[in-house]
Amino acid sequence: MLLTNAHVVTLARDADYGLISNGAVALDGDRIAWVGAMADLPAEHRDVPSRDLGGRLLTPGLIDCHTHVVYGGNRAAEFELRLNGASYEEVARAGGGIVSTVTATRAASEEALLADALTRVDALIAEGVTLIEVKSGYGLSVEAELKMLRAARRIAEARPVEVVTSFLGAHATPPEYKDRPDAYIDEVCIPALRAAHAEGLVDAVDGFCEGIAFDTAQIARVFDVARELGLPVKLHAEQLSNIGGTQLAARYGALSADHVEYATEADARALAASGTVATVLPGAFYTLRETQAPPIQAFRDHGVPMALATDCNPGSSPLTSPLLTMNMACTLFRMTPLEALLGMTAHAARALGHGDRGRIAPGLRADLAVWDADHPSELAYRIGFNPLHSRIFKGAS
Amino acid sequence: MLLTNAHVVTLARDADYGLISNGAVALDGDRIAWVGAMADLPAEHRDVPSRDLGGRLLTPGLIDCHTHVVYGGNRAAEFELRLNGASYEEVARAGGGIVSTVTATRAASEEALLADALTRVDALIAEGVTLIEVKSGYGLSVEAELKMLRAARRIAEARPVEVVTSFLGAHATPPEYKDRPDAYIDEVCIPALRAAHAEGLVDAVDGFCEGIAFDTAQIARVFDVARELGLPVKLHAEQLSNIGGTQLAARYGALSADHVEYATEADARALAASGTVATVLPGAFYTLRETQAPPIQAFRDHGVPMALATDCNPGSSPLTSPLLTMNMACTLFRMTPLEALLGMTAHAARALGHGDRGRIAPGLRADLAVWDADHPSELAYRIGFNPLHSRIFKGAS
Ligand SMILES: [Zn+2]
Ligand SMILES: [Zn+2]
Repeated sequence: MLLTNAHVVTLARDADYGLISNGAVALDGDRIAWVGAMADLPAEHRDVPSRDLGGRLLTPGLIDCHTHVVYGGNRAAEFELRLNGASYEEVARAGGGIVSTVTATRAASEEALLADALTRVDALIAEGVTLIEVKSGYGLSVEAELKMLRAARRIAEARPVEVVTSFLGAHATPPEYKDRPDAYIDEVCIPALRAAHAEGLVDAVDGFCEGIAFDTAQIARVFDVARELGLPVKLHAEQLSNIGGTQLAARYGALSADHVEYATEADARALAASGTVATVLPGAFYTLRETQAPPIQAFRDHGVPMALATDCNPGSSPLTSPLLTMNMACTLFRMTPLEALLGMTAHAARALGHGDRGRIAPGLRADLAVWDADHPSELAYRIGFNPLHSRIFKGAS
Repeated sequence: MLLTNAHVVTLARDADYGLISNGAVALDGDRIAWVGAMADLPAEHRDVPSRDLGGRLLTPGLIDCHTHVVYGGNRAAEFELRLNGASYEEVARAGGGIVSTVTATRAASEEALLADALTRVDALIAEGVTLIEVKSGYGLSVEAELKMLRAARRIAEARPVEVVTSFLGAHATPPEYKDRPDAYIDEVCIPALRAAHAEGLVDAVDGFCEGIAFDTAQIARVFDVARELGLPVKLHAEQLSNIGGTQLAARYGALSADHVEYATEADARALAASGTVATVLPGAFYTLRETQAPPIQAFRDHGVPMALATDCNPGSSPLTSPLLTMNMACTLFRMTPLEALLGMTAHAARALGHGDRGRIAPGLRADLAVWDADHPSELAYRIGFNPLHSRIFKGAS
């Protein structure tokens, strides 16, 4: 298969878009075989079925590397209560907060969780997403965590999209373990991780390191088990305060440290040294009306790759638009449109440990997005507009 | 035509959603004939073709009462320049700012302006919009202002949507009148208004009253002509500072005062007295990273109806999602989901002088939206998600 007449955004390196006008991309099965200017097309790629992209923009498929798309219920009623002036206590008494999502997730069947998640996955796919990370973390019992991960795995059977899973048992302490987080880690979280891993349901291990969740010692116990099982780790770190999560993640060679609003320059240095990606999540920053942006300039200065994700979840980021996420990264965090696009492609791939995608280069995966746009800066510039023309997943349209 | 099995959001009054579960709506041509619980359906509406909405949410069609969707070019390059650290002066030297849009709009044919606008209008329609206001204001010459308004009128021929136009000659002073705003008002703006009105292109007269645009005396001269021609007025007022635009708008009995971030309690009182709608535009507030929100509580206290709009424009609000606008109004301005929905329906209708739509009640226009949602609060709660199932325009699907 040969794609012709494309305005190719190769992202071959981080310094620029790597634009090729009047470009061509040769595909071999689910891999990219060649990319370059049409005029330079080697003879071997000429006599194959071709598709004229009409001068449209061609980018790597988008990658959403941090989502919680599998969950039960929604939190619209809580959103409305708060805006009508209810206090946190009143919301909690009305059954709101993360506990309401845990209750609804536990009550839902695997089938119902999948069906509900697919409405959100379809929105991501409609904006050119080809790879999605999905976390557990609203079950908080062995069975319910397994159910979430099974539903996550089935997304990839139901839709033309790839899914990688993260086990997030250390997301919150469930009501039945209130004020006993250590017991929860030992009696539920770690056994659930072992069971999920045995079933082949876990691609990485995540945690929520925060004053309102788990401390570094508790997270370290979970990460030790991940290491024993040969699973990579990542961490929700420094979202609302700095309690050392980023340094912990770096010490474990984490794939990514996520949120990182309160990360310091020393944290940036640690991430750079461990090769850990900083994943920024502007949707949660926007929804929670936070004022401290992540230290973008420190990440730049120290060469920390920045990924970008929707953090799609029912509480702090009910966001299903990767393009809007890119606009928010530019508007709220002052990232450049190039950084935003790298964050949703090459750097997101790296945050998932998938170095073979997120750029357009020979040997990489033929996951691509075609856009009705003249220049890649338009993808981040518009707000709530979807110029996707079509998507190519594993070499097929 | 009878719509059955609907979860009807009548918005019959401002105090609540006016929910009717298991509701029915009888349509007579392009009007609503009856609305109520299915069980109460009068015999006369029973033997007509019916459509089962499957328990879905039914709301009035959304109304975007403040847009600049007709324009040439885009400002993605400028967006990118700024985020790469260019100063305002450097952006201006690179041909950026409103002048670049004026240049591109003047250079574009009416046909090209229409085609470009339709990409944005299609995005609005896809989220349930049935009525759109469209402004001139990037031509700034008699001919180019007329061209914009002709393109705006043609939107309603090209798509199943209604369009009302606002003449916004007093938007900015074009380069050829630099530092001579009074001469521009007399020699271009007012003659263009008279010419556009003579051609039947003007439904209302708008202006931009701001330190960087026109002062109240200049706007008043344009409004005097509007009054002479029998046209209603509205005003971009108090967006970046308070120079008396809101009070001026109220004195002229304006349909709406728009932006109004810097409006005071006295301004709110004046709007209430004149029956003028306050139209808030969170997309521009978000994009410009403003910090002063409009005085929502003062508007509530004084009973000023609040409308909500995308302000879709290439510079300060390249936003084409009414649902995201509703979320932003809640998140950034702390409006309630009910206020946001009223702002995009009943109050937007009032801001356009169309009292016969924006609610579901007998005699009103049968412009409706059907949503895959359980409760109307979900429309503002989600971010970048479109649950529209279908749209009914003038009684037809
Ligand atoms: Zn998260
Ligand atoms: Zn405007």
